[in-house]
Amino acid sequence: MNIGQYTFEEFKKKTEEFHSYAAPGVLVGAYMVELAKKSLPQGTLFEALVETKKCLPDAVQMLTLCSAGNNWMKIVDHGKYALALYDKHTGHGFRVSLSLKKMTAYDEILAWFMRTKPKKEQDVERLWRQIEKAGDSLCDSIPICIEKRFLGHTPSYPHMVCSKCGEACPENNQGKCLACAGEALYSLRL
Amino acid sequence: MNIGQYTFEEFKKKTEEFHSYAAPGVLVGAYMVELAKKSLPQGTLFEALVETKKCLPDAVQMLTLCSAGNNWMKIVDHGKYALALYDKHTGHGFRVSLSLKKMTAYDEILAWFMRTKPKKEQDVERLWRQIEKAGDSLCDSIPICIEKRFLGHTPSYPHMVCSKCGEACPENNQGKCLACAGEALYSLRL
Repeated sequence: MNIGQYTFEEFKKKTEEFHSYAAPGVLVGAYMVELAKKSLPQGTLFEALVETKKCLPDAVQMLTLCSAGNNWMKIVDHGKYALALYDKHTGHGFRVSLSLKKMTAYDEILAWFMRTKPKKEQDVERLWRQIEKAGDSLCDSIPICIEKRFLGHTPSYPHMVCSKCGEACPENNQGKCLACAGEALYSLRL
Repeated sequence: MNIGQYTFEEFKKKTEEFHSYAAPGVLVGAYMVELAKKSLPQGTLFEALVETKKCLPDAVQMLTLCSAGNNWMKIVDHGKYALALYDKHTGHGFRVSLSLKKMTAYDEILAWFMRTKPKKEQDVERLWRQIEKAGDSLCDSIPICIEKRFLGHTPSYPHMVCSKCGEACPENNQGKCLACAGEALYSLRL
């Protein structure tokens, strides 16, 4: 089954370029994203909420204009392979998840998804073939209204200069950026 | 100044396709990413840490194999326009930030960066021209060693089936997924 405008092979290649390898999660996710997209009324300005940080965010970023950097894609890591696309104004949209019941027809997908087979024992060629064959038939889709906290634009906060490192950061009462206030991310190599 | 293999105009177009519009933050960020990339020894397998969730993550995702979905790009939102690329094994790499001092030669960039001019008063054509002219000359780069907590692969956790919704989720003591345990993300539209 094609993935939107792409053949399965084309999308596999695109995945290698973006995600570094043709991860099953991105390929399965791509069918989920396409199903959610076509469920929305044409022309809907939509945003995305992804319920896992593994793989699925990349399927969203590759197939929609929602990205981590424009904040139209939000991730709440419940560790669940599901996503919602919803009208950015009303919050109405569709949540697409994977059905364990429907998955029983595809043993290699089920073993991968439930992690019952160690990675090195997976037959990845067989897994890819099952994913292409299953397409979006593994998906459950339900109409949802997203929680209000995910709607609306994050306001742009005023900037100050950190009194310690001299870099720009969001204004706060301490006069210092979060890194200088204690949350170090790195040490200097001398 | 070119952005890696792209002319400025080519990268602007690529940004529209990925990020939805040619955001100044992605364009400035692209020069930062390219500077960090060429500072690393050739062939280094690297990961990325980004210190803001605004725009910069997309420059990283567009110009490296680090992405939100493969977890080679991590975001710690300190609201600072800086990123580090580092060897995924040793943690050694470079942190690139924007220098307020060097920025004083570019009034439109400075006003955008420090948010001293309302968005509707920005001259975006002039801003783009200044960004292209400045290239990576606005950057500060320092050699760093990333904090240990950012190194290493996140282990794959075993999955269970949530006793309430019947979906797969990471194993936990409650027997329910986080959504069913209370953190709802959406309501059903009937």
